[in-house]
Amino acid sequence: MGLLKDDGVVYKPVNEIDLGPHSDEVYLYADVKAPRMAGAVAKIFVWFLEMKIIGDVLLYFLKKNNRIQKLVSFAVLNESPLYVPSQPYEEYKQMLLNADVEKGEELKCLDSGLSPAEQVQQAKGCLPSLDTRFKKSTSDESFHRWTIMDYSRAYESRQITPLMVAERFVSAVMQSSGPGADMSFFINYESHDILKQATESTLRYERGEAISILDGIPIAVKDEIDCMPYPTTGGSKWLHKLRPCKEDACCVKRLRSCGAILVGKTNMHELGAGTSGINPHYGTSRNPYDPKRISGGSSSGSAAVVCAGLCPVALGVDGGGSVRMPAALCGVVGLKPSFCRIPHSGVIPWNWTVGMVGILASSVEDSLIVYAAVSGEDETQQPTMNQQPKLYLPMLKPSNQISSIRLAKSKEWFNDCSDDIRICCLNALDNLYKCYGWPTVEVTIPDIEAMRLAHYVTIGSECATSFAHYLEKYDKSESGSDVRVALSVYGAFSSRDYLQAQRIRNRQMNIHEKIFGVADVIVTPTVGITAYEIKDDVKKTGELDYVNGASLVRYSIAGNFLGLPAVTVPVGYDKLGLPIGIQFIGKQWSEAMLIQIAYAMEALCKAEYKKPKVYYDLLTES
Amino acid sequence: MGLLKDDGVVYKPVNEIDLGPHSDEVYLYADVKAPRMAGAVAKIFVWFLEMKIIGDVLLYFLKKNNRIQKLVSFAVLNESPLYVPSQPYEEYKQMLLNADVEKGEELKCLDSGLSPAEQVQQAKGCLPSLDTRFKKSTSDESFHRWTIMDYSRAYESRQITPLMVAERFVSAVMQSSGPGADMSFFINYESHDILKQATESTLRYERGEAISILDGIPIAVKDEIDCMPYPTTGGSKWLHKLRPCKEDACCVKRLRSCGAILVGKTNMHELGAGTSGINPHYGTSRNPYDPKRISGGSSSGSAAVVCAGLCPVALGVDGGGSVRMPAALCGVVGLKPSFCRIPHSGVIPWNWTVGMVGILASSVEDSLIVYAAVSGEDETQQPTMNQQPKLYLPMLKPSNQISSIRLAKSKEWFNDCSDDIRICCLNALDNLYKCYGWPTVEVTIPDIEAMRLAHYVTIGSECATSFAHYLEKYDKSESGSDVRVALSVYGAFSSRDYLQAQRIRNRQMNIHEKIFGVADVIVTPTVGITAYEIKDDVKKTGELDYVNGASLVRYSIAGNFLGLPAVTVPVGYDKLGLPIGIQFIGKQWSEAMLIQIAYAMEALCKAEYKKPKVYYDLLTES
Repeated sequence: MGLLKDDGVVYKPVNEIDLGPHSDEVYLYADVKAPRMAGAVAKIFVWFLEMKIIGDVLLYFLKKNNRIQKLVSFAVLNESPLYVPSQPYEEYKQMLLNADVEKGEELKCLDSGLSPAEQVQQAKGCLPSLDTRFKKSTSDESFHRWTIMDYSRAYESRQITPLMVAERFVSAVMQSSGPGADMSFFINYESHDILKQATESTLRYERGEAISILDGIPIAVKDEIDCMPYPTTGGSKWLHKLRPCKEDACCVKRLRSCGAILVGKTNMHELGAGTSGINPHYGTSRNPYDPKRISGGSSSGSAAVVCAGLCPVALGVDGGGSVRMPAALCGVVGLKPSFCRIPHSGVIPWNWTVGMVGILASSVEDSLIVYAAVSGEDETQQPTMNQQPKLYLPMLKPSNQISSIRLAKSKEWFNDCSDDIRICCLNALDNLYKCYGWPTVEVTIPDIEAMRLAHYVTIGSECATSFAHYLEKYDKSESGSDVRVALSVYGAFSSRDYLQAQRIRNRQMNIHEKIFGVADVIVTPTVGITAYEIKDDVKKTGELDYVNGASLVRYSIAGNFLGLPAVTVPVGYDKLGLPIGIQFIGKQWSEAMLIQIAYAMEALCKAEYKKPKVYYDLLTES
Repeated sequence: MGLLKDDGVVYKPVNEIDLGPHSDEVYLYADVKAPRMAGAVAKIFVWFLEMKIIGDVLLYFLKKNNRIQKLVSFAVLNESPLYVPSQPYEEYKQMLLNADVEKGEELKCLDSGLSPAEQVQQAKGCLPSLDTRFKKSTSDESFHRWTIMDYSRAYESRQITPLMVAERFVSAVMQSSGPGADMSFFINYESHDILKQATESTLRYERGEAISILDGIPIAVKDEIDCMPYPTTGGSKWLHKLRPCKEDACCVKRLRSCGAILVGKTNMHELGAGTSGINPHYGTSRNPYDPKRISGGSSSGSAAVVCAGLCPVALGVDGGGSVRMPAALCGVVGLKPSFCRIPHSGVIPWNWTVGMVGILASSVEDSLIVYAAVSGEDETQQPTMNQQPKLYLPMLKPSNQISSIRLAKSKEWFNDCSDDIRICCLNALDNLYKCYGWPTVEVTIPDIEAMRLAHYVTIGSECATSFAHYLEKYDKSESGSDVRVALSVYGAFSSRDYLQAQRIRNRQMNIHEKIFGVADVIVTPTVGITAYEIKDDVKKTGELDYVNGASLVRYSIAGNFLGLPAVTVPVGYDKLGLPIGIQFIGKQWSEAMLIQIAYAMEALCKAEYKKPKVYYDLLTES
């Protein structure tokens, strides 16, 4: 960022910016002046905001207050707009070709045209064989969530059947949603449908005809993704009435074709329009590590069910960190692949250029398996949004064999989090260096705050447009206060706001490309704070808490606005025992490398993983 | 278009639309209710429009009145936005590969990495050899503008030198701009600079070292394109003060490297924001066929100088027909290649996704030569906006040897023009069938009017954003009324308006792709009316005439909004002797075929070409 003009920032040309550690670029701390609101106060605020003229005036000051005008709308910069976060295809091909040669046998390239089950079979070949797996910590108490392979081996060896697991699942969910627990993990699940799928899977195992290692695995789906026979509420009380769910989303179809048991629709922040997961309609999905606290959002339920042992994997959608934030708060793995890597058809079309399906998993190896199952081109889509290189899978192996990885860290940004998180993540970096010799390169990534605001303008504008004809028909009183505020703000952006945001997107793409010239991945904490408490006043109205929201979303934006793949891995706990995640952000299409890095990180931390307060063991408990 | 909802149209899925001749799709006639304004009335209107609140209310009704809300902003459609009008690169490659095979020796593929002069040399090889050229009509009086090859041969044979031509050029321009003629062709030209270039060229010919057939050819450049040593006014009195011209635009650099003489900056509509070429600051470029009438806009001067014989070729910029409209009104060839085919760097950045450099030429063969000189990737640009297949050039030969071309015609749209134009263009189609056996396929291209409005929202939004920081600094009174109205409207679009326009872009891309499934090119008149009179009241204020504007722009939009290449060829004259053009619109990257078609069309019409009232013969007059 350059000189401040009267009302707009003048950005330096990217080539003139010092991206090194001693850059004079100023790190702008979030400057959210909005007080937390909930209950009656929030209601009154919404009432004003939705009034014709007073609302417009309020919106004007909200935009101004949030520095959108200064950093985005009135900014002066050279870049032309970049509307869709993807690089020219030719370049990827070259990049991957190089990667392939460099990494030798570490990556496996899949032929195109494989079925999801065949891709899963390939992924199975990438897993460490049992004897080369990392030894568990010597203490047997070390906590371990059951993985897909654990289930699969138990099914194959007839120790247990999918039907038995499904029955335990149903009873666990009933218990978790009972009055004592009130965990609010799911918006919808149908025992009958779950048991039916489980019965079919069980029969397949009995006939020795299991489709893949995913056969019989319980997988939950965020209620933003179409999955029969459920309506897709998007966390709202009204959307499913206007937008009926007619068939499985493409990613769900792929999981089903592998034999997975789709166990229901997980709770989420209403319309995905928040980071806390606080939902006034379906209850707030609680954090299994401390049920008084949020599980984060918007894929709150998906993170919580994996955390609580109900599924080894769940699907979420990540438009602004919505997979990675709850994953970090719940101490599970969160993988958001490159833009377009997982087909988006059948996901509520809230935006066109930032949202992507992501995977919440109990372990890195499980995220790899499901990544293999759901990724790849969707032949029913337009080629414009659908061009991608072949799928590469990483061979997961003891990570000290992986060629040296350079991690980029932007100090002030990295440190803009709670002390516990900072210390824990810095410690993780130390361990990566000690155990694998991976160095951390100090860099400066400028204008992170401007990117956050540009992303907000983008996701807001696209949502307001995509949703306009639904919003005409719905009764506002059916939504929470936070959503009503969001929708008012979203509808107030001008075409100039939007176009300027796309110019900042281009600029940040260039900046990140330069960063990736000196490092393989960018490393950050996943979120700036650990899970916070659910206050009593949020039940009916939801909550407006932009200060905590900004802390949660701080490290997420590049993954969405620039379409970069990113993964979060649990690396420890704060003083209260709440999980902390570390995030790795890679170049476009570098998922394979990211998964390898995450696997290496997990290997160093897993001995210390703690069992959540709310936990269900579907495999061994009787 | 489908059912009319309360306030927005509901568009049918493209696959359900009947694109055949008997479709029930309704052709929407332009419904412009704004009265023509100029002089004091225009001034008062602008005064109201620029007022804070009254202006906003006026703008609201202007948008509503123009059906933008109904057809664009509030429309309901399935398509996601398509922001940049280009297809995935892989597809083109396949397409061209096929074309190459099919057409055999009819297309010449250029190696990449050739210099502009080498590309021109290749183009020379595509021209008909003298003996196979079309015979001129038997009557020797048939009018013929001198072509590049005419100049080149005259130079090579020492009949005349570039310096002599330049001297005649300077004297002709002085005469044309004198008080009696007042043609206002140029905004800037410097005799000294022109004669200096001509002297150098003459020396090269004397040494037998002419760089290419463009050596010594006078070429004029629209004052929207940077060309040293001139300021780039964009037709305004102020822009060049804020945006100094520091070097030649890429396309100008390429022409200069071929030896062309850059003879000055042609007049244009202020900021390109109109279709008439009426300019209150530099006078209105007059039509050489009738100096009481407009030459059309916005590349008004570039069309007029070619028409008047001052240059065989001139460069223009076409963001909404701005090359093709004046070309048609002035009876010359206008070629607008595919989006990005000619580098855009060094052109005033008024928009990012619709404007392209185009060529105005006295003949199709000259348009081919200059197309070869200026086309191809610009290595200084970002690859995102710069990916294109190799350059293909057409072998120009007697057109009855060209494989059969299918022309698509959408009847009601085609007929939405003056009687003279319709009859003349239909007659041209008859001749194409009679002489070459090229059939015309009747089709229906729906929602042309919606596409025009979506394009308007797009170009307006992009202009308002790109120009925002200039507009903050300029004194509004320095602009004409029409420009001030345009800038007010441009700044008033919401992000929803813009995004909806991009969805319509996607939809129209799909529709046009289907049309190109049944035909090679779309054929239309180039404009709906011939050149109209310049009224006396426009001198100081410019003119607001949206009715005539809509008639002029009617057939232009697909070339810009969808990035399709298009060419206009003169095919006759109306009862007043004013030129009429026919337009061919091709698939992306099909310039080579388009030029071949235009060449065939020209061959059938050139015997009837008439000499304009204002005409300068630089080659043979003494």
